[in-house]
Amino acid sequence: MSLNNEPQQTSPGDVGLVQPATFACEQPLALQRGGELTRFDLVYETYGELNADASNAILICHALSGNHHAAGRHAESDRKPGWWDVCIGPGKAIDTNRFYVLALNNLGGCDGSTGPLSVNPATNDVFGPDFPTVTVRDWVESQARLADHLGIKRFAAIIGGSLGGMQALQWAIDYPDRLDSAVLIASSARLTTQNIAFNKIARSAITSDANFHNGRYAEHGVLPEQGLRVARMLGHITYLSDHALAERFGREIKSGDPDQGSEIEFQVESYLDYQGEAFSQRFDANTYLLMTRALDLFDPAAEYDGDLTAVFAQTRARFLMLSFSTDWRFSPQRSTDMSNAAISAGRDVSHAIIDSPHGHDSFLLPVPRYIDALGAYLNRLAQVTNA
Amino acid sequence: MSLNNEPQQTSPGDVGLVQPATFACEQPLALQRGGELTRFDLVYETYGELNADASNAILICHALSGNHHAAGRHAESDRKPGWWDVCIGPGKAIDTNRFYVLALNNLGGCDGSTGPLSVNPATNDVFGPDFPTVTVRDWVESQARLADHLGIKRFAAIIGGSLGGMQALQWAIDYPDRLDSAVLIASSARLTTQNIAFNKIARSAITSDANFHNGRYAEHGVLPEQGLRVARMLGHITYLSDHALAERFGREIKSGDPDQGSEIEFQVESYLDYQGEAFSQRFDANTYLLMTRALDLFDPAAEYDGDLTAVFAQTRARFLMLSFSTDWRFSPQRSTDMSNAAISAGRDVSHAIIDSPHGHDSFLLPVPRYIDALGAYLNRLAQVTNA
Repeated sequence: MSLNNEPQQTSPGDVGLVQPATFACEQPLALQRGGELTRFDLVYETYGELNADASNAILICHALSGNHHAAGRHAESDRKPGWWDVCIGPGKAIDTNRFYVLALNNLGGCDGSTGPLSVNPATNDVFGPDFPTVTVRDWVESQARLADHLGIKRFAAIIGGSLGGMQALQWAIDYPDRLDSAVLIASSARLTTQNIAFNKIARSAITSDANFHNGRYAEHGVLPEQGLRVARMLGHITYLSDHALAERFGREIKSGDPDQGSEIEFQVESYLDYQGEAFSQRFDANTYLLMTRALDLFDPAAEYDGDLTAVFAQTRARFLMLSFSTDWRFSPQRSTDMSNAAISAGRDVSHAIIDSPHGHDSFLLPVPRYIDALGAYLNRLAQVTNA
Repeated sequence: MSLNNEPQQTSPGDVGLVQPATFACEQPLALQRGGELTRFDLVYETYGELNADASNAILICHALSGNHHAAGRHAESDRKPGWWDVCIGPGKAIDTNRFYVLALNNLGGCDGSTGPLSVNPATNDVFGPDFPTVTVRDWVESQARLADHLGIKRFAAIIGGSLGGMQALQWAIDYPDRLDSAVLIASSARLTTQNIAFNKIARSAITSDANFHNGRYAEHGVLPEQGLRVARMLGHITYLSDHALAERFGREIKSGDPDQGSEIEFQVESYLDYQGEAFSQRFDANTYLLMTRALDLFDPAAEYDGDLTAVFAQTRARFLMLSFSTDWRFSPQRSTDMSNAAISAGRDVSHAIIDSPHGHDSFLLPVPRYIDALGAYLNRLAQVTNA
């Protein structure tokens, strides 16, 4: 690997304007749980330059509601940059002066890749609820084809938070020779029962919306917005810590007087309404169902009678695990479970539990010790690989 | 107080068949947040005998979805006894050989007391969403009238779990001379932001149900069952610990094969569906909104700039606080906050944190150390009071 160890600028910068591209895969993809896609599109973005021997590529895997737009802006007027701009850019933790960073929208997504909103070639109607169940393994398979397309035989690192970390782990299992490092942030080798239960409730909110029509809302010209709203509000609370909510909103009143008869609205209620509303306008309900199901079903140890060490024995990558002290949705214990199994399997693994008040959401936030740890690891990785 | 210190039977028994009674209060009740009820009914049950000086009465205050049927059965064929039968009966922790136990359905409830399902005398239609906002203080006021009606000037103890504990605390504040002891189980002096957020989502699920019709579902001959279902599922998860869910359901599959294409249903999903369905058939949506709002609004320290010690300075009762190690909805810290404030205010207070894997639900379950602690306290109370 020939990485440039001298950063081209000293203070972190932004990747600037970016444009998504589309990989059209015309080879059929057989899916893990049956069925196939006769073809598919993956929308992706890249930041930085692929070096001559294509050894400096980093794949970013997104979480439940993420997409390919991980950094930069599509237009100068964009109010917000990509979802992980805090980590990706020249001089940032995932340094685009050194690395060629690839981010995509997963299969089944609703931001341009083939998914429930796409036209089903078998019917010429949108897939809607007929889109097949996709799993983390299917995502990895489709991502491997994108890597082939881009000429990347081996990633320097595959990085993901939450559901994204599950993809990084699956890569290490399915393609042990195609990555140097897997970075699993606020992730888990499987969901807890409580997590499945929260996903179930979110799905119930969507499927019981009168506008859901068994997933055929598009044909009815409506959207199950209320269900999506409730699902998002619920998800959102579980991504934040009790403490973070208390610090930010406390018992502040948005409107109404608690001493009078007027209707009370707490600030936290108004905030959740805003979050739910914004999400319901941008996210597809069938995609939400499909993504949460992929989360539920992920359990690579299942085929080894729950033996996670046997899972890590299949891998050869170095692992970095990062978890957050107040994350109760993917608690540090889940990363410890993985780290212990990786150690037992003789793998090279580091696990840092980062003190952060922000719960599961920490992985998207500029928590200094977290950003520093990630950056230091990738910097060392570059040096070790160069040595 | 002349309590019988010799239990009439040595092994705990049941209260047997019980019948509810109705207290019809024809005096208007002015409500804390404005408006009034020109009259109201409270449905209640009693277990045990009131002694000659009416000094052995214990009031049981119910939580969010509870009612007056706390112990015994209404018919031999009843599949289940009252909701706190595990604690109430001859020889049980709340010993009906010694105590006269009173349980009621709160104002605004849906089990017979005046509430949204009752006829509004002003319109001759059901109140529905026009039922006024009631607060914990209003409940205490209505309960005090019931006590007057029954000839109870002073309770030996007022006991409640969760929202019920808030009522016991409010009693101690509003009527310091009308109770010897307040027993606050898995309770809090106010909800956390996270708790308010969970309540908000449950309400949103209900109010966004297409059958809700701004609360006038009765006029439309429908029920917002789907919304109630989601609300209950959500509540239910937060009452259980992560650990309890994992122990009970793990990742067990109810139907479908994870290795095949068939639709998967996890056991925990089926369980939640059952819980949601049962609840949606028995509980009124407007009552659910009203009860969760009463929870949100409870904050006796607010009028003292958040100083909980100033609140306890208003009280004279002895306090027993019981909390449960895995309760993350009303964590032990909330009881510690109250206990510390009570100590600072010079009150007689004991706080036991009970090791229990069952989360908030522990207060309804036969957790031996909990039942023993409650029984021992009430036994000592009886002896001290007799001394």
